[in-house]
Amino acid sequence: MSLKEWKNWKHITKLDPDRLNTEEIISTVINSGTDAIIIGGTLNVTREKVEKLISKIVKYKKNIPIILEPSNPECVTFTNIDYLFIPSVLNTKSTKWISKAIVQWIKDERKKSVEIPWNKVVGEAYIVLNPKSSVAKLTEADTDLTVDDVVAYAIYAERYLSLPIIYIEYSGIFGNPEFVRAVSENIVNAKLFYGGGINSRDKALTMSKYATIVVGNVVYEDLNKYLETII
Amino acid sequence: MSLKEWKNWKHITKLDPDRLNTEEIISTVINSGTDAIIIGGTLNVTREKVEKLISKIVKYKKNIPIILEPSNPECVTFTNIDYLFIPSVLNTKSTKWISKAIVQWIKDERKKSVEIPWNKVVGEAYIVLNPKSSVAKLTEADTDLTVDDVVAYAIYAERYLSLPIIYIEYSGIFGNPEFVRAVSENIVNAKLFYGGGINSRDKALTMSKYATIVVGNVVYEDLNKYLETII
Repeated sequence: MSLKEWKNWKHITKLDPDRLNTEEIISTVINSGTDAIIIGGTLNVTREKVEKLISKIVKYKKNIPIILEPSNPECVTFTNIDYLFIPSVLNTKSTKWISKAIVQWIKDERKKSVEIPWNKVVGEAYIVLNPKSSVAKLTEADTDLTVDDVVAYAIYAERYLSLPIIYIEYSGIFGNPEFVRAVSENIVNAKLFYGGGINSRDKALTMSKYATIVVGNVVYEDLNKYLETII
Repeated sequence: MSLKEWKNWKHITKLDPDRLNTEEIISTVINSGTDAIIIGGTLNVTREKVEKLISKIVKYKKNIPIILEPSNPECVTFTNIDYLFIPSVLNTKSTKWISKAIVQWIKDERKKSVEIPWNKVVGEAYIVLNPKSSVAKLTEADTDLTVDDVVAYAIYAERYLSLPIIYIEYSGIFGNPEFVRAVSENIVNAKLFYGGGINSRDKALTMSKYATIVVGNVVYEDLNKYLETII
């Protein structure tokens, strides 16, 4: 089976290096039919944990793309990954989470004479919408947004910045499908990702109409429900 | 004479709508051999002043591109301009000047059902380096940067954001050519602009080795010196 190009992915599974990734979880995910695995979490992610999780996945030698989505520069590795999805939070109140953290990473890698493999790097424009989520708190996200605000952020990301992925992140709760629909109708080239609260076939179907869905937490809660989300 | 595509411009003249743009200035600039005219200023720029300046330039019916570089959304017009260069300040301490002002503009235009002509819009990644300049004060720029910082910002702008123009802005003083050289050596596709203190043939030659030069203030001080900068 040849790999689908990332723009054609419909279902992505996100595994958190800080959680217990059992053999059962890994083998279920790999054989589920999901299009790709993102390795990413907000808190307590270290390079050691990332590498451990990657090694569990690659053991299966299955043809599934592995994406690292680092939440901090210290956990970045370039080994055994197909893509590095680097997030930038558009609705943050702090320049750290839109630009400074990435600039610092670039500076640090240059200092170590490490060449960043830019051909693997894909920029993600996050719009973080659940105020109670760890990611919203960490990145000081202004989640009090109307649908017009969210659409304006998406247009900015696509038309002005040319970021290839726009990521509506409700992390932990199921979001408002109208927000996702409105964004999908107002972007042309960028790929829309949706993440948050997808733990059933119905929810997967609802958001899949407008976006590539990213399924995370349910993997750790109920593997049968996880498998339902692959439609 | 056919117009040079903006990526091939070597010398740009920046006219400030808030200053006295006499007929002598306009006709000298238009006949100088400069590749394009940017209309832009930091303070007290209104749409009325912008439109007045544009009307003075277009009167000459000369084949010279006119770019509007708005410092605030209120002064934007789409009439009689070839490009809209929209600046984003990378080294700002406030999200307003890297993203929020542009997002607000997009939102306001959508509310008025105005379609932004994205084919005319070009994003500029500013790095503002003179702490005493109006632009540095207004945009809360962190100007205390090493050459490695500036290079990291430039790589971020080009590789991560895909912004087509990187603009090193010393506004009012002549900058450090080593900074400009280092950036030019570390970018591949983005076009590098340099602005600040170019008021002689020597200074124009120095910075032209590494960047497209933007010449502004000297136009209002000494038109003969301005003409020297066109090399």
